Amino acid sequence: MDVLIVHCHPEPHSLNGALTAIAAETLTSQGHRVEISDLYAEGFDAIEHPCHYRNRQDSQVFSALTEQRHAFEDRQLPDDVAREIQRLEQADLLVLQFPLWWHGPPAMLKGWFDRVMVYGGMYSGSRRYDRGRLKGKRAICAVTTGSPAEAFEPAGRAGDIVRLMYPLHCSLYYLGLEVLPPQLAFGIQGGGLAYQEETAFRRHLESTKTDWRARLKSLEGESTIPFSGWDDWDEQGRLGLRHPLRWR
Amino acid sequence: MDVLIVHCHPEPHSLNGALTAIAAETLTSQGHRVEISDLYAEGFDAIEHPCHYRNRQDSQVFSALTEQRHAFEDRQLPDDVAREIQRLEQADLLVLQFPLWWHGPPAMLKGWFDRVMVYGGMYSGSRRYDRGRLKGKRAICAVTTGSPAEAFEPAGRAGDIVRLMYPLHCSLYYLGLEVLPPQLAFGIQGGGLAYQEETAFRRHLESTKTDWRARLKSLEGESTIPFSGWDDWDEQGRLGLRHPLRWR
Repeated sequence: MDVLIVHCHPEPHSLNGALTAIAAETLTSQGHRVEISDLYAEGFDAIEHPCHYRNRQDSQVFSALTEQRHAFEDRQLPDDVAREIQRLEQADLLVLQFPLWWHGPPAMLKGWFDRVMVYGGMYSGSRRYDRGRLKGKRAICAVTTGSPAEAFEPAGRAGDIVRLMYPLHCSLYYLGLEVLPPQLAFGIQGGGLAYQEETAFRRHLESTKTDWRARLKSLEGESTIPFSGWDDWDEQGRLGLRHPLRWR
Repeated sequence: MDVLIVHCHPEPHSLNGALTAIAAETLTSQGHRVEISDLYAEGFDAIEHPCHYRNRQDSQVFSALTEQRHAFEDRQLPDDVAREIQRLEQADLLVLQFPLWWHGPPAMLKGWFDRVMVYGGMYSGSRRYDRGRLKGKRAICAVTTGSPAEAFEPAGRAGDIVRLMYPLHCSLYYLGLEVLPPQLAFGIQGGGLAYQEETAFRRHLESTKTDWRARLKSLEGESTIPFSGWDDWDEQGRLGLRHPLRWR
């Protein structure tokens, strides 16, 4: 497999840094090729903005969709965007490694979607979901959280983790990717957990790394999360009236 | 009321721009005071990054939480962050105006949370949710989407809008805000909808504006979305075993 790890953390000596190193090492030792997009280290510009488009289709009113399509068709995509698309096209598996900040990925990673997944290039009205450009590839989110696992149960204090991951999973699925259940490292806080003993915290960090290493070795055989698709929807994009899910 | 509108769109002549102008105008004419954070126009830096912290508590390993708390306690917060906090503290109502990009707010708005909602200042372990710093204030998201409303039904083509809004609502609630149901302007695409007549599209835009204007006038009497709170959770942050929701 060709693997692309999109790594999003400002500190190389973080647990996120360690988990990306473990993924690179483990997958390489399994005979896979690993490429890393280190968004912070590479100084990726995560803000979709008129400044990225030199030859605008509409120089008066800026529409991201219009300019993305124009730049793609004109082969004038910004260099960083073109590079990320190339990396994605080469990959069989996409790993997103990031900490959960404010109930979602950091702005740096959100902006990677905003800028790289260009309209007219990475998707169009008819080229989405199970007809998407990245069809046949798979993706997995590897996420660290501050709060412990219990708090991420439905209506728990940290929010339902299944619902927190839903928008990002939708975005991956939108591109045609099949999505594996996320790798969740709960209870990680900057500098250690106040409510745990230091030794217990270190043990927790170690088991987090061990779990990831073990899972990476069996990732190829895993099943992906089922999503609805074109065959399920009517013209308006709704589940058809005769669809079983509609009556649940 | 004092109202803070956080406006997130790169193009002033967009529908988002028009909706923010309508909100400012309508609320002002009702006797409220309106302040606007125009993130793109003000060049807000949305990326949490070591470069924002001149006097680090830990100069070796960067932890956002550690440095946020340190900068807050030291009164060394970056100027833009300090300004946004001041704006928030003055506001009784927070309006977030943005387009739905990749199943969530643009990176620019996500990063407003990442940077402005500093640990140790805007929240702490004990000062969150219904004991949060912004308790007593209310918030509403005003969102434009490309896809039509039907596609945002559960398992619909655009994703379930209730679940797409959930993480952002969690973040608002985390700060102590009470959250009003969002104002959703569906079916807006850059440059018009390919599948609608131009005149029908213009009518759609007009009714979107009229709806917002009308709703703004009655916002003060509206009920907020119920969330679970400290009284519902056990020590681990789970719904207690005797909590009714637990058995649903």
